[in-house]
Amino acid sequence: MDLKSLVRDIPDFPKKGIVFKDIMPMLGNKDALRYIVDSFFVHYFGKRIDKVVSAEARGFILGPAVAYHLGAGFVPVRKPGKLPFRTKKVTYDLEYGTDTLTIHEDALNKGDNVLLLDDLLATGGTMVATGKLVEALGAKVVGAGFIIELDFLKGRERLKGYDVFSLINYAGE
Amino acid sequence: MDLKSLVRDIPDFPKKGIVFKDIMPMLGNKDALRYIVDSFFVHYFGKRIDKVVSAEARGFILGPAVAYHLGAGFVPVRKPGKLPFRTKKVTYDLEYGTDTLTIHEDALNKGDNVLLLDDLLATGGTMVATGKLVEALGAKVVGAGFIIELDFLKGRERLKGYDVFSLINYAGE
Repeated sequence: MDLKSLVRDIPDFPKKGIVFKDIMPMLGNKDALRYIVDSFFVHYFGKRIDKVVSAEARGFILGPAVAYHLGAGFVPVRKPGKLPFRTKKVTYDLEYGTDTLTIHEDALNKGDNVLLLDDLLATGGTMVATGKLVEALGAKVVGAGFIIELDFLKGRERLKGYDVFSLINYAGE
Repeated sequence: MDLKSLVRDIPDFPKKGIVFKDIMPMLGNKDALRYIVDSFFVHYFGKRIDKVVSAEARGFILGPAVAYHLGAGFVPVRKPGKLPFRTKKVTYDLEYGTDTLTIHEDALNKGDNVLLLDDLLATGGTMVATGKLVEALGAKVVGAGFIIELDFLKGRERLKGYDVFSLINYAGE
């Protein structure tokens, strides 16, 4: 299926000079939504995934739908103050400043096989941080899946050891 | 399935005096996640749903998984500044102050049958606002589904004309 034709380029969003890849028209298309979810299911089938972990907010769109098909549970990673129970947190560097993500400290069992899912792989900062949270709880990251991968930002190199899988690739800007 | 036993009460979150219903342990349970998604599928099967619409962030967890099974697309409703394309917006009253939600103005077609999904029905303010956005685009709200309904807040009365369906009900505080 030609998913790329359903991605909408938005110039200068969220700030000048950035071309934002808008996946919302694609997710609104029932055939594309089905194809996306099925693609992750097929790729990670048989990998004994116990939990799918995704970061808010766009990651939430993909995580539970794929978890359902893999027979896994879903675990959210959120900004500080959003998860109500006791959390582990990780702080990581952005282009300017830092960001922090949290996970419920009882959300994973030691030895759980975990699949990380997000809409977009850029530099990989969010995904590396999410992987650290998973590993801090004693679970194992098996794979990291994305709808879109911006190859030229080389996020994949920071996810070594994970089974990285993406559906749409952009070689250059 | 006894879903209620998987809901965790968190006293004084997000502020003193409120008992927060934490659904995350339930979503992390693969059997419960499957049962929840299947329950919405079964209830709304045959209703010719074209799109499932959910508000960020927790609504995103449920919407796409159910949309997949109903053969529908998924459309997000978000806080201002988050959706990159042209939007319609609605502002509504909270207990203190107001809140605003937005939808992409091309996200729905006139006459689309829409199912609204969210994790929790309290006073219904978010869901009423979401319904207004859907109707402003010329689409029709068929139903509104929730994992949890706080019956004593009477949100259901504000959703007249919709097929309201919830999986877990609390009669009192």
